[in-house]
Amino acid sequence: MIRVILFGSGNVAFQLAKAFMQAKNIELIQRYRRDRINDDLFDSSIPKTKYLNELKKADVYIIAISDDHIANFSEQLKFKEGLVVHTSGSVSMNQLKCTAHKGVFYPLQTFSKDKMMDFTSIPFCLETEFSKDMTLLKTLANTISNHVYEINSSQRVKLHIAAVFANNFSNHMFKTAKDICDNNHISFDLLGPLIFNTANNLKFLDPKETQTGPAKRNDQKIIQKHLHQLKGDQKELYALISKSIINSYQKD
Amino acid sequence: MIRVILFGSGNVAFQLAKAFMQAKNIELIQRYRRDRINDDLFDSSIPKTKYLNELKKADVYIIAISDDHIANFSEQLKFKEGLVVHTSGSVSMNQLKCTAHKGVFYPLQTFSKDKMMDFTSIPFCLETEFSKDMTLLKTLANTISNHVYEINSSQRVKLHIAAVFANNFSNHMFKTAKDICDNNHISFDLLGPLIFNTANNLKFLDPKETQTGPAKRNDQKIIQKHLHQLKGDQKELYALISKSIINSYQKD
Repeated sequence: MIRVILFGSGNVAFQLAKAFMQAKNIELIQRYRRDRINDDLFDSSIPKTKYLNELKKADVYIIAISDDHIANFSEQLKFKEGLVVHTSGSVSMNQLKCTAHKGVFYPLQTFSKDKMMDFTSIPFCLETEFSKDMTLLKTLANTISNHVYEINSSQRVKLHIAAVFANNFSNHMFKTAKDICDNNHISFDLLGPLIFNTANNLKFLDPKETQTGPAKRNDQKIIQKHLHQLKGDQKELYALISKSIINSYQKD
Repeated sequence: MIRVILFGSGNVAFQLAKAFMQAKNIELIQRYRRDRINDDLFDSSIPKTKYLNELKKADVYIIAISDDHIANFSEQLKFKEGLVVHTSGSVSMNQLKCTAHKGVFYPLQTFSKDKMMDFTSIPFCLETEFSKDMTLLKTLANTISNHVYEINSSQRVKLHIAAVFANNFSNHMFKTAKDICDNNHISFDLLGPLIFNTANNLKFLDPKETQTGPAKRNDQKIIQKHLHQLKGDQKELYALISKSIINSYQKD
């Protein structure tokens, strides 16, 4: 049985708490949070405190608070036993300023409070100072997920950037497409099959191989026609992304 | 029974021919192509010709050739009966220079030759000069697809631009994410769940509402940290798309 204490009351803390409460080999023995915000969302049977001197002894302490506060908060953790980890994609392990062993327990997914998460499919990226702690952290992660990876701090920064492209930036392309549809009284539903086809292709195919469209063909006639119809941010995005696509395929 | 003649031997012609051969109420009576390229891929029972004076009489003539040749090719079609349509997202109906009635029969999907297409889920965007022809074209489209829309030429240009964002540009984001992973010895599989989550959200949610990440939060600390790690096209893309995301959410 792995004894866990969770710090925080945001989306990640909430979803982790739910997953831990359902896991057989994990005992979520305490939850620390600064104030009562979101207390009603969490399972009321989890003991909670807002005083660090009331912290119990655990095997793993998970800091699931906002990135900016991780360093300062961890400095207040003066105990020496156990493993202290944070859950952030963009904070290096060394920003933990606690006295105990350090590590990272980063679930690569966006979380919201109102959605059921299937943790078994969420990749967990782990890092520890000491290899013996990695064994413990892997056991913890494997209890809730089938996709557990060792990723060091410098890889994690790159992974976070890659995730921004794959998730936030692709979503902005969908949002821009929807704006164009909305402004021209076209149902965004028309683009549904195309979008799912693109995402589905990724299961089997390299996105470099599946690219199509005017920029892939360097079809300047269509590109210029499209640019002529656009303005502002949409025009800048169209021009730059087309240029980058053209560059990608001309190099070959 | 709708009698159809198909012009072309590319991906769209090939996939349409396959769908028509399986459809009950459509008779694909002839295929016209300039040369024998891809002849072995098409069902050999479809009568074919390379001479326009050998064309049979059909209800609908479908020009599925490359955009640039549609105008010139259609000029050679001197018959007056029947409906002549092209399948392009970026060519206006008026670029058809034939003497018969004109229309557009645009399937909004990317096609390849080696993939089985489920036409029932592909949106068809239709336009005709005369409303009576729309009835015929809708009947034809409904025979192979469950998603049939009337879209005029100016809407179709916008729709094509939206599709470039939703499909080509999002795919380029996935490709860039994969490049970053590959260059840092990180498995692209780690991003799979995140990507499917993003695409899946679109079934129920507005992409504007589901955006997350540093640019959405206008988190300049992370944005600058990421930009510092990037160079070339990737850096330009990161900067511009982040700026556009920030602009989208600051307006509110």
